[in-house]
Amino acid sequence: MFKATINAKDFKKIIDATSNLVDEICFEVDENGIKANAMDPSHVALVSVNIPKDTFEEYISDVHDIGVDLEALKKIMGRAKSNEKLTLELDEEKNKLNLILKNDAVRKFSVSLYDVSSTNLKVPDIEYPNEVMIKAGAFVEALKDAELVNDHVSLKISEDGKFIIFSKGDINQSETIYDNNSESILDLKITESSKSTFNLAYLKDITKATSSDDILHIYLGSDMPVKIEYNIGNAKILFLLAPRIET
Amino acid sequence: MFKATINAKDFKKIIDATSNLVDEICFEVDENGIKANAMDPSHVALVSVNIPKDTFEEYISDVHDIGVDLEALKKIMGRAKSNEKLTLELDEEKNKLNLILKNDAVRKFSVSLYDVSSTNLKVPDIEYPNEVMIKAGAFVEALKDAELVNDHVSLKISEDGKFIIFSKGDINQSETIYDNNSESILDLKITESSKSTFNLAYLKDITKATSSDDILHIYLGSDMPVKIEYNIGNAKILFLLAPRIET
Amino acid sequence: MFKATINAKDFKKIIDATSNLVDEICFEVDENGIKANAMDPSHVALVSVNIPKDTFEEYISDVHDIGVDLEALKKIMGRAKSNEKLTLELDEEKNKLNLILKNDAVRKFSVSLYDVSSTNLKVPDIEYPNEVMIKAGAFVEALKDAELVNDHVSLKISEDGKFIIFSKGDINQSETIYDNNSESILDLKITESSKSTFNLAYLKDITKATSSDDILHIYLGSDMPVKIEYNIGNAKILFLLAPRIET
Repeated sequence: MFKATINAKDFKKIIDATSNLVDEICFEVDENGIKANAMDPSHVALVSVNIPKDTFEEYISDVHDIGVDLEALKKIMGRAKSNEKLTLELDEEKNKLNLILKNDAVRKFSVSLYDVSSTNLKVPDIEYPNEVMIKAGAFVEALKDAELVNDHVSLKISEDGKFIIFSKGDINQSETIYDNNSESILDLKITESSKSTFNLAYLKDITKATSSDDILHIYLGSDMPVKIEYNIGNAKILFLLAPRIET
Repeated sequence: MFKATINAKDFKKIIDATSNLVDEICFEVDENGIKANAMDPSHVALVSVNIPKDTFEEYISDVHDIGVDLEALKKIMGRAKSNEKLTLELDEEKNKLNLILKNDAVRKFSVSLYDVSSTNLKVPDIEYPNEVMIKAGAFVEALKDAELVNDHVSLKISEDGKFIIFSKGDINQSETIYDNNSESILDLKITESSKSTFNLAYLKDITKATSSDDILHIYLGSDMPVKIEYNIGNAKILFLLAPRIET
Repeated sequence: MFKATINAKDFKKIIDATSNLVDEICFEVDENGIKANAMDPSHVALVSVNIPKDTFEEYISDVHDIGVDLEALKKIMGRAKSNEKLTLELDEEKNKLNLILKNDAVRKFSVSLYDVSSTNLKVPDIEYPNEVMIKAGAFVEALKDAELVNDHVSLKISEDGKFIIFSKGDINQSETIYDNNSESILDLKITESSKSTFNLAYLKDITKATSSDDILHIYLGSDMPVKIEYNIGNAKILFLLAPRIET
């Protein structure tokens, strides 16, 4: 038994955020809520989703592994209107997940389940020297600056405690500098200077589903994976992206 | 002699609605107004347009067959602004149709006439067991739901008198259900349950030029063509689409 | 030494207007401001830019030739927000031009300089029988009308002093007529009827960066190049386009 009702807008955003990196996912559901961890096909990025029970208006669940094609789910959620309620319902007999949207019409979608077994993937518990709290919109804009000159980008903490998004191409370079006076910065918890370089396409995928006012927690160290976390309603989404090895 | 003035917005919509299905058309004009019937190249859909004289601000006409390339007309009407008046004028000597738009500038377009003879095509007079009056926007949204899973769609009247837009793919399915309580439904005149299946691309073409508040009259029966009618100002446009033979 | 601060919006528009025709350009800077003349690769069109010193908030300059890739500059300026200040700064040691945008973040871009030597290109001093002052939006709309029927367009002054944008295709034709009563016409200084025909794609490139309320000065004669001038803030931009030889 699994039946859960949530506002369609939040679930749409969770699916959007996840589907940019991963094609299929196994939702591990139980009485406490929905969890899912997955790695992208190249094993460079990890995404972890946690939707606690209290995010839902109605929530009844036994323990199940629900493997779904995220592309199909994304298309269906793309059809939801922002004020709609979504009911998710497991049809164990037919091995399908039903998605029911109620508004002026009743709309029922159903998708076949995949045999995606739970991965037992754990999010590694890393300690970071630096944490940046920044509005998603400001970070996304800085990535667009970097994109003009190259396909990778360095996230740096300078000696004097500034957060620098830096990119260097063969002939051009770009640099976006945020400090404590920037309105888009909510907090800079800095203990040391650091620099790591990342594939820009992954960072764009990771931030694609954000709204510009979402608050990103970006955890940084030298040549360490970057950890990026934000909330979607009561749900939490976390990304871990391996650094690019510079030669 | 043929000279007629109409507001550009209405004529643009008539041309848009027609040109989605048909490449060229023969406007049969006379003292009562403009009529045209045409079938799409695959002979699956029929469109019938009736623009009575009183739709026009000014209307003077003898009997003529005016064959035009709808793609050219559509492009020209795409250049009209919604508050403009359009004058249509037959130049019999040069065998051209002139389209004159007056606003800040005077804009004159002229298109060569095609030798598209009047087809004597008649709209068959079919009696239908069921009629659905629904806002065009709601019907178009339901077609988009169906499009997620397959390229054809079933229009059903259920035993309990609901209007169901249903689509089934290899692994997914979608279903949009309207009943008398739906705000988008203006009327359901039901005498029996029915089901017919149609090519989705045709239904999309038929409804592409509609505004979401246009009222569609959809006539349905089992394995019968669907008839869809709506008004554009005082003009009436009607589509007949053959059902898909299910195997 | 070259350092100049200007509002980003104006500089963006100057770069947009220029880059539609030319790939690289040599800015000739001195104590009076920035000048640049360039021809498009096919030598059909000439663009001339003049940004006097008083256009800038801050301006300090020796004499330099600054050769830049306009495509790179266009991309960077595309990242500027309309309320931002832009500082241009020549780094003679590294042979780079720095572009610094200050807002919530500090953003530094730098582009390598090209060895584009000053061309000594002069704008020929031609006397024209006719001058049309027209809102850019109205002229651009007329070009779109013409585009429906052919890839070249005639700019005509009629015997009775109207400004006509005319295009003729194999089967269709279009004509947009402005006179002294048209609101989009600010002035018509006519001394004789005239007609010249131009490549439509060039005219579209020349007017692409305009806002609809910009005032174009269009200078016309029979089988003469057309000269089109407009202002961007205090800066002046001028285009000269050779006529199409009609056979």
